[in-house]
Amino acid sequence: MAERAVFFLSDQTGVTAEALGHGLITQFAGQDFRQVTLPFIDSEDKAREAVRTINAAGQRSSLKPVVFSTLVHPDLRAIVKESEGIHLDMFDAFLDLLSDELGEEPTYTSGGAHGMSDIDTYMRRIEATNFALANDDGGISRDYDAADVILVGVSRSGKTPTCLYLALQYGVYAANYPLTDEELENGSLPDVLVKQKHKLFGLTIAPQRLQQIRKERRPLGNYSSAQQVSFELREAEQIFRRYGIPHVDTTKFSIEEISSRILDSTGVERRVHV
Amino acid sequence: MAERAVFFLSDQTGVTAEALGHGLITQFAGQDFRQVTLPFIDSEDKAREAVRTINAAGQRSSLKPVVFSTLVHPDLRAIVKESEGIHLDMFDAFLDLLSDELGEEPTYTSGGAHGMSDIDTYMRRIEATNFALANDDGGISRDYDAADVILVGVSRSGKTPTCLYLALQYGVYAANYPLTDEELENGSLPDVLVKQKHKLFGLTIAPQRLQQIRKERRPLGNYSSAQQVSFELREAEQIFRRYGIPHVDTTKFSIEEISSRILDSTGVERRVHV
Repeated sequence: MAERAVFFLSDQTGVTAEALGHGLITQFAGQDFRQVTLPFIDSEDKAREAVRTINAAGQRSSLKPVVFSTLVHPDLRAIVKESEGIHLDMFDAFLDLLSDELGEEPTYTSGGAHGMSDIDTYMRRIEATNFALANDDGGISRDYDAADVILVGVSRSGKTPTCLYLALQYGVYAANYPLTDEELENGSLPDVLVKQKHKLFGLTIAPQRLQQIRKERRPLGNYSSAQQVSFELREAEQIFRRYGIPHVDTTKFSIEEISSRILDSTGVERRVHV
Repeated sequence: MAERAVFFLSDQTGVTAEALGHGLITQFAGQDFRQVTLPFIDSEDKAREAVRTINAAGQRSSLKPVVFSTLVHPDLRAIVKESEGIHLDMFDAFLDLLSDELGEEPTYTSGGAHGMSDIDTYMRRIEATNFALANDDGGISRDYDAADVILVGVSRSGKTPTCLYLALQYGVYAANYPLTDEELENGSLPDVLVKQKHKLFGLTIAPQRLQQIRKERRPLGNYSSAQQVSFELREAEQIFRRYGIPHVDTTKFSIEEISSRILDSTGVERRVHV
C-alpha cells in the first residue's frame, strides 16, 4: 500500500500538532501513514521550506499529504496553505470562534502553550522529577511525607515510568515502592507504608504481560517464570484488597492513561499545567 | 477579575484536549482561566455528569465556560454539547473533512491516540526510560555505544529531566554526562566522550538562572555562588566550541522545547509516536 505523508507543523515543538493529528489519523484504519514533524517554523523562509517538503512528499507518493498545523502567525499560516496538502489548522478552526465569544482579540504570540520562560513551572517539574528519582524503588533516601502518591506493586509493573511521567507532565510528587518477597509471603505492608495508607495506589498487570516484560530484562531463572509471576501478582492483589488500596491493571494502558487514571482516582491535584 | 472555567473533555486521558486548549487559551491575555480536566468520559452517564459540572461552573461565575472536547463517539459528543458552554470540538472541526479527503469512514474507536495495549510502544518507552536512568549523571553503568544522544553540561543545566522526557515522549536513548571540575579547568573532554563526539549535545543556561536553580538545592556555599556558576558555564561553552558540539541555551525553554530542539538539531529519529 502506498504511504501517505502526514505532517505536523508548529512554530514550537510540534507536541500539540502531533496530539491533534494522532487523535484524528488513528480514526482511519485503512491507510498507511508516514509521520513527519516540522517544528520551529518561525519565519517565512522556514514556512516556504515546509511547503517544498510537503509538495515533494506528495509528488513522491501520488497521495495528497495531510498537514496538521498549529502555526499561530497568520502570515506563516497563509504561506503553508499554499502547499498541495489536506490542511487541518487548529487556529483556523477555533481562534475566531473563541475570540468572538470571549470578546477579545488574540495576541498571536507563539510559545505560550508550553510555559516558555516560566521558571516556576520549570522548577516544579524539575523538583518533582528529582523527587521521583530519589523516591524510586523504595530507596533509602525516601521521603514519603512529602509524597502526593506512593505507587505500590511488584517488580516491572510500571511504577518507575509512571512516577516519572506524573512528575514531568503534572509536577506531582510520586514515590514508588516495590513489594518484597517477604511482604508478598506475609501479605502485609511495612509500617512505613501503613502510616501513609491514604497515599498508596497499586499497580497490577496480567501475568503473561509481566512475564514478557521480565524476560526482556532477565530471560532465565525464577524472576520471569510463570509460577513466580503468578504468585507475586496474586499476593499483591490480596494486599491491595486487604488494605483497601485503589489499584489499576496496567496491561491495556499506556503510561499517559495509567497516570491520568491515578490522578482521577486519587483526586491528587497536578502542580503544573503544561 | 471573575474566573472563567475551561474544561478539557476526553474519553481518554485528556492530554490531547489539554494541548489543544492550552494552545488556544494562551492567545487571550485578558482573561483569568480556571482549568479542569474531565477524563475518561466513556459512557452516557459520565457525559451527563460532565454537563452538570459545566453548567454548575457557568452558574457560579456568570461567565460561559469554554469546553474543549476530544470525545470520539458522536452520541457522547451530542450530550456534552447540550451544556451551556462555548464548545470547541476537535472531531467536529476536522473529522468529516479528513474522512472526505481520505475517502474512508472513521472507525470512531477510542484510545488509538495513545497506543492503548500497544505493547511494542510501551516496551520501547520503558526500555528508553531504563536506559536514561542507567545512564544518568555519568554513572558507571553507562552504555554510550547504545545511546542515541549524550547530553553534556554543568550540574543543574537540565540534563536529567530532558533525558527522561526524550525517553518517555520519543523512546529516544538519551544519556547524560555532567562535566567535572577537572574537565572544566582543563577545557578537555574525557576519552569516553571524545569517542562518541558525534552523539554529544550541550546544554547551557544563563548564570543567574543556574544560580537560582542551584540555590533551591543548596542555598549556601560555592556550588551556587555567582563566581563558581559563571566559571563553570564559561568553561563549558568553551569546550562546546572547541569540540564543535551543538548546544542550546535552556534558559528560556521548557523541557518539551529543549527536547524537540535536540531532535531537530541532531536528526535523531524518535522510536515511538505517542
